[in-house]
Amino acid sequence: MSIYEESLKFHEKNKGKIEVVSRVEVNSSSDLSLAYTPGVAQPCIEIHKDPDNAYKYTRKWNTIAVVSDGTAVLGLGDIGALASLPVMEGKAVLFKTFADVDAFPILVDTKNVDEIVETIVRIAPSFGGINLEDISAPRCFEVERRLKEKLDIPVFHDDQHGTAIVVLAGLINALKIVKKNLSDIKVVVNGAGAAGTSITKLLLSSGIKNIVVCDKSGALYRGMEFIDEAKTSLAEITNPNNESGSLADVIKGADVFIGVSAPGVLTGDMVKTMNTDAIIFAMANPTPEIFPEEAKSAGARVVGTGRSDFPNQVNNVLAFPGIFRGALDVRAKDINEEMKVAAAYAIASSISDEMLNEDYIIPKAFDREVQKRVAEAVKDAAVKSGVARI
Amino acid sequence: MSIYEESLKFHEKNKGKIEVVSRVEVNSSSDLSLAYTPGVAQPCIEIHKDPDNAYKYTRKWNTIAVVSDGTAVLGLGDIGALASLPVMEGKAVLFKTFADVDAFPILVDTKNVDEIVETIVRIAPSFGGINLEDISAPRCFEVERRLKEKLDIPVFHDDQHGTAIVVLAGLINALKIVKKNLSDIKVVVNGAGAAGTSITKLLLSSGIKNIVVCDKSGALYRGMEFIDEAKTSLAEITNPNNESGSLADVIKGADVFIGVSAPGVLTGDMVKTMNTDAIIFAMANPTPEIFPEEAKSAGARVVGTGRSDFPNQVNNVLAFPGIFRGALDVRAKDINEEMKVAAAYAIASSISDEMLNEDYIIPKAFDREVQKRVAEAVKDAAVKSGVARI
Repeated sequence: MSIYEESLKFHEKNKGKIEVVSRVEVNSSSDLSLAYTPGVAQPCIEIHKDPDNAYKYTRKWNTIAVVSDGTAVLGLGDIGALASLPVMEGKAVLFKTFADVDAFPILVDTKNVDEIVETIVRIAPSFGGINLEDISAPRCFEVERRLKEKLDIPVFHDDQHGTAIVVLAGLINALKIVKKNLSDIKVVVNGAGAAGTSITKLLLSSGIKNIVVCDKSGALYRGMEFIDEAKTSLAEITNPNNESGSLADVIKGADVFIGVSAPGVLTGDMVKTMNTDAIIFAMANPTPEIFPEEAKSAGARVVGTGRSDFPNQVNNVLAFPGIFRGALDVRAKDINEEMKVAAAYAIASSISDEMLNEDYIIPKAFDREVQKRVAEAVKDAAVKSGVARI
Repeated sequence: MSIYEESLKFHEKNKGKIEVVSRVEVNSSSDLSLAYTPGVAQPCIEIHKDPDNAYKYTRKWNTIAVVSDGTAVLGLGDIGALASLPVMEGKAVLFKTFADVDAFPILVDTKNVDEIVETIVRIAPSFGGINLEDISAPRCFEVERRLKEKLDIPVFHDDQHGTAIVVLAGLINALKIVKKNLSDIKVVVNGAGAAGTSITKLLLSSGIKNIVVCDKSGALYRGMEFIDEAKTSLAEITNPNNESGSLADVIKGADVFIGVSAPGVLTGDMVKTMNTDAIIFAMANPTPEIFPEEAKSAGARVVGTGRSDFPNQVNNVLAFPGIFRGALDVRAKDINEEMKVAAAYAIASSISDEMLNEDYIIPKAFDREVQKRVAEAVKDAAVKSGVARI
């Protein structure tokens, strides 16, 4: 039986992967008068007096929405809001399992950015945070930017930032192995969609100076004509030497390749032109930009992919649960770059120097200790960067 | 310590009354590949092919939204969406406790009817039903009517219909005691808001012919000038003899008084002018339209209130959990009058003829058997009236 058939049976048997349960017993009139009328009037009054009391008397403090419009679901593309529900329930399972966050799927049945934003703003009161999921680029940038502007709770698009954080974590550890510094390396990011853009921005925040972003037509450089505004601004902040040309052109001499693009686009010949001790993250799923064996035989030193059957899986489950745990714990009003970089260092430092090697630069997804470290680091960074409210 | 102080402490201690939990274990890569990627792609594909598959592979079949805009919360009035959250969490607790329904609070931060409707329509995909709560009249009528029109899942405004169903249940039993028939009696409903309107409509559906509805200015009759359209249509379908005058005028000779109005508006002198064996539901909270003792000494035979410290409490917790349980179990596309009347008869018949007496016409709220009977009756009525989909 294939994993797909097995998963269908698994889903049918479980009758849904999440459930809303009561935290209180209601077995008598006196229970009812505390949890419900008439007693419940008092917490209502207190919240009416001061909205912050919602964090004290309700579950808002620990509850987030997992929001999708179903336009970029896994590799399936635009399958619609309803059909994305199994993914959103799965995400809620991971939030609860790894970080005790109460996450609830909110499917928004519109592709219009204005409508998505106004809908989420209107239903935001009961939530302590918003996790955006599987919304297609470039719409996802706009949705996230405007929600961050309008809401005073953290908003986080995991497809963008989750992957970026784990890539940065892996890169920090890979650089320890090859003894290079963030500030000295040249990185080529192949793919200028949601993930590529966010990875690029986070790598810039982390101190990397020379990043060249490529899309299907090659390197993004200043002076190029873009239809997509997001690419114009990406070209503004990257590519310090304003290199142009194909991936094969700009990969020459690069220390790091980061692929969030398409199967097989990086060849062994290209890897041979990279700097010594090349580091490669080939994250196209399920078929990577280059398979680890081929990359290694072409001279790469460290290779990561998106797959669990190869070493160094870039799995965003290492990041998002702990990030929201940390943000919720200090009632952060935002998840900012400082918090993301802190999360990456927390993931990286979960592997001790003794354990670290070419095939173990990223911790295993099921290590609960990593989630705790991430949460702690994110809390501290929130406090230091001034977005914590408690 | 007052119930209010106690309830505050209770809410603070519990850190929220509901919680979103996982129904599946995720402890290994193979668990992850079934519940999440890559396996989860398959249920997504199946739902994309046929939206009905969402009922098979996700929790939609058992999940409802408890929606409020916070405009008519308990007796507190318009305290805003966020401040209503303790009530909505409480409601979710009752849904889960009494009928294993997964209910999640959705607070809509707008008072504009168009915006409330479009917001709920957009986020409806993940829900199997919508329970509206504490939305002020007459806006609640419009919100419910339009959502029923636009959505193919059941929509139910509990403040209207929940109370109506339990009142009808109590009335059915009270009439057994006084040996009168629904079709022969005269009923005065005092209060023309959400609850009064819905009670009136349900009593008409149940076969009562002579109902006079009063608001603060007296009986609603045809020919009267109304600002509120809802009252015009109420006058159209009630008051067969087109009686006018004050409550004191129209109560004369009535068999039943149903108050969803204000403390103390029914006097002993008025009760004395009612027909023999008068039945009174005085549901203003916490102070009823008339206290049971006073009503009885003025000649009333059966008296119910909204309070748990008097006999015959009209408590809608007897209705809403079982109603949604029944509706969800047959994937009903609506909760119609037939289902509501069936629920009322199921509640009424939970008290055997031997047990039935003046002080026991409505079963206790904590009787789980009642909920099961309601669910069964609602299922049957959904099937018979053609709104069941399985």
